Amino acid sequence: MLGLDPDPADLWTGAEEIPDGLTPREAAGRAVLAHCRSLIDATAHACVAIKPQLARFEVLGAAGWATLAEVIAHAQQAGLLVIADGKRGDIDVTAGAYAGALFAGIDTPYGHVQGLGADMVTVNPLMGADAIEPFVRAARQTGAGVLVLVRTSNPGASDFEDLELVGSGTLWERIAEMVDELGRANVGEQGLSDVGAVVGATVPAHLARARELMSSATFLLPGVGAQGGRIEDLAPAFEPGRAGGLVTASRSIAAAHRTAGGEPAAAARAEAERLREAAWTLSDRIVRAG
Amino acid sequence: MLGLDPDPADLWTGAEEIPDGLTPREAAGRAVLAHCRSLIDATAHACVAIKPQLARFEVLGAAGWATLAEVIAHAQQAGLLVIADGKRGDIDVTAGAYAGALFAGIDTPYGHVQGLGADMVTVNPLMGADAIEPFVRAARQTGAGVLVLVRTSNPGASDFEDLELVGSGTLWERIAEMVDELGRANVGEQGLSDVGAVVGATVPAHLARARELMSSATFLLPGVGAQGGRIEDLAPAFEPGRAGGLVTASRSIAAAHRTAGGEPAAAARAEAERLREAAWTLSDRIVRAG
Repeated sequence: MLGLDPDPADLWTGAEEIPDGLTPREAAGRAVLAHCRSLIDATAHACVAIKPQLARFEVLGAAGWATLAEVIAHAQQAGLLVIADGKRGDIDVTAGAYAGALFAGIDTPYGHVQGLGADMVTVNPLMGADAIEPFVRAARQTGAGVLVLVRTSNPGASDFEDLELVGSGTLWERIAEMVDELGRANVGEQGLSDVGAVVGATVPAHLARARELMSSATFLLPGVGAQGGRIEDLAPAFEPGRAGGLVTASRSIAAAHRTAGGEPAAAARAEAERLREAAWTLSDRIVRAG
Repeated sequence: MLGLDPDPADLWTGAEEIPDGLTPREAAGRAVLAHCRSLIDATAHACVAIKPQLARFEVLGAAGWATLAEVIAHAQQAGLLVIADGKRGDIDVTAGAYAGALFAGIDTPYGHVQGLGADMVTVNPLMGADAIEPFVRAARQTGAGVLVLVRTSNPGASDFEDLELVGSGTLWERIAEMVDELGRANVGEQGLSDVGAVVGATVPAHLARARELMSSATFLLPGVGAQGGRIEDLAPAFEPGRAGGLVTASRSIAAAHRTAGGEPAAAARAEAERLREAAWTLSDRIVRAG
């Protein structure tokens, strides 16, 4: 999967390609849009989804949100799914508003206001079940899914997620149990539920345990590439089948030309194809062995 | 403090006040802006800050972000501080982008893109110190502050935040210790640091313990009013002085006319004045006794 994490200071699009007379906000939005479109065009055949990082669009304000909607439309035209990575988490009505923003939108006295139309969203579970459930309910209305942060890929994940609880297990394992419980009500024909988990690819030892606790969850696997995770170590993610694991890479695709040389689009295409091959080879081996 | 949580289906502004010919998104944005301006005008003299709930603006997409910027400008003209309640939390570069969006903005090759100019933001600490620190660094550049979720006011808070850890204490107490540590580097003349805490007003028993663990933190106290919290129970929040506790109410102010009767603006003004009186009386009593 293609992570979209566009830094206006590090885009394929040069400033010379942006028309004059725009505000900095509008110009940066245009440049980000052109960059994301080129990245999608270069890699769509080797990806199943894009994962836009909401922060990078939010920092451009209204222009960023308009850009995000256009990037999503472009990805959907290319047949890709959309995973909105915002890690939102808040109570009842507030979570409902976030879910409206990311999925189907909301009805207002002025007519229906469309949401981003995401197929999956990432959710932060710290505040408890009532911060997750509004997303799950909204997802079920459009056949979408939710990916709950369970064990993230960053160094700070050990600060709280790895803490040992009285009565055995860690905080992340307790979160995993809730993910399993919330998803049990809706397991599809392929054995996968609509409540998945974000499990970092940087600590492979956690993957087997996570799969034990969440047998029907789709795993979003950040941390491959720039953060040090290797596809070869992700076998437990694919136990339910090829769709059980979603490998996501951002910087290693967008910046592939820095290490591999050549033109950015060609290098990104080659890196996306390499990642797809590695993931498919691994998942085929597991499915045949299973 | 005035919480701004505008539901397009429940505004003071009637649909008849919005010009024809707008898209649903634009019309809802206009109506939300008019509502928030009226609320601010009615209560500014009795408040120190507004706390916009980002989800309610995000659900209107680009129009929502444009509306939010206008609401903030209106509040700043009225001399109010702005607490952007988005509960963001993500790693390094991503947290930096969120901080840019909410505080001072970012520099791009196209010029400086302004942020929302918030004075404080709420942050979700689940992913650990590296999800909080970029916000603290960005806040220090503009003299702003960060409010970390420690023990929230919702029923689901007990699912994870209250879990007992091996080695004594709960998860929220461990988070409180990190808040104290992060804030110690920057305690001002009034004895308050720039890293504060969100501590729900719904479980007053937690407040004394939270103050013990975070002696110099500003407490944002949600849950007064509609969620059942009472100002009279918040004494420990004000131990460092009047600014130690920020009482926030949204629905009880905006919907005061439903229970008190009369015109919405007058009822909101009266309720905001009542809350201010109660908070000041309490904090004065504590400061005199201390």
